[in-house]
Amino acid sequence: MRLAKSTDLALRVVMRLAVAGDELCVARQVAEDMQVPYSHLAKVVGRLQRLGAVETRRGRGGGLALTEEGRTASVGWLAREFEGVGDVVDCEGDVPCPLHRACRLRTALRQAQEAFYASLDPLTVADLVGPPTGPVLLGLVGGSGGAGPPGGQPARQA
Amino acid sequence: MRLAKSTDLALRVVMRLAVAGDELCVARQVAEDMQVPYSHLAKVVGRLQRLGAVETRRGRGGGLALTEEGRTASVGWLAREFEGVGDVVDCEGDVPCPLHRACRLRTALRQAQEAFYASLDPLTVADLVGPPTGPVLLGLVGGSGGAGPPGGQPARQA
Repeated sequence: MRLAKSTDLALRVVMRLAVAGDELCVARQVAEDMQVPYSHLAKVVGRLQRLGAVETRRGRGGGLALTEEGRTASVGWLAREFEGVGDVVDCEGDVPCPLHRACRLRTALRQAQEAFYASLDPLTVADLVGPPTGPVLLGLVGGSGGAGPPGGQPARQA
Repeated sequence: MRLAKSTDLALRVVMRLAVAGDELCVARQVAEDMQVPYSHLAKVVGRLQRLGAVETRRGRGGGLALTEEGRTASVGWLAREFEGVGDVVDCEGDVPCPLHRACRLRTALRQAQEAFYASLDPLTVADLVGPPTGPVLLGLVGGSGGAGPPGGQPARQA
């Protein structure tokens, strides 16, 4: 069972931004740190912006930052937004399944999918960077992602 | 969020066999009815056999049948078996995520995945072909999948 790659990336991006605290993160640097193509990151960042979870500031000293909305956003909500509506099996596919509306499996899988998201609903982005994750992530990124002064300021933890 | 294609196929195969009742289903006919390559079906059937859910009888009048174990099998158990162990995001991937053991997201997603399966645990294969699914499926396959006499015997419903 797999989440979409864009959902995976979105969750990791908000975690990355959550440990940056007030420091702005340069998007290209984030893409490099996370070793993903910049175009993929940009697409995910765009969606996060439209959701109000991330903001960007242009120009010198510009970059990405998690908004307060983003920090307190539910992980379940984010996952639902990025996964979109749809079944966990391919009912429509190349060969649409004829059972479609009469299918108990489809109903059961929808309920199971809902249980998946419901499990994530109470968790926030801020929760994701609690210990030990936040400190480890902070140690990994140090001042490399920030747009702060050389030597970097310690990022305030979420 | 997607289940593996083999999980999807396995669930649909057991449903198909569940409505056949005592009739044996010719594997190639099942593959044709379900419009999947025979090789894919054969692979899934092999796994279902090893799990004890399906049996095959060779020779004239041979074919596939759901075992009693298969009929009463939990859908959650079947899904777990076919999905295997693993995360819903690609922690190991081409670029292994350095957070790995310190990651709260990974833990949260594992719990969510467990909630998904737990939702399916109480459901059996027999439940999946209760009304309206069983009757609709029976209507779709008629006597075409059976190895019975011309004209077919009515398949006893699960």
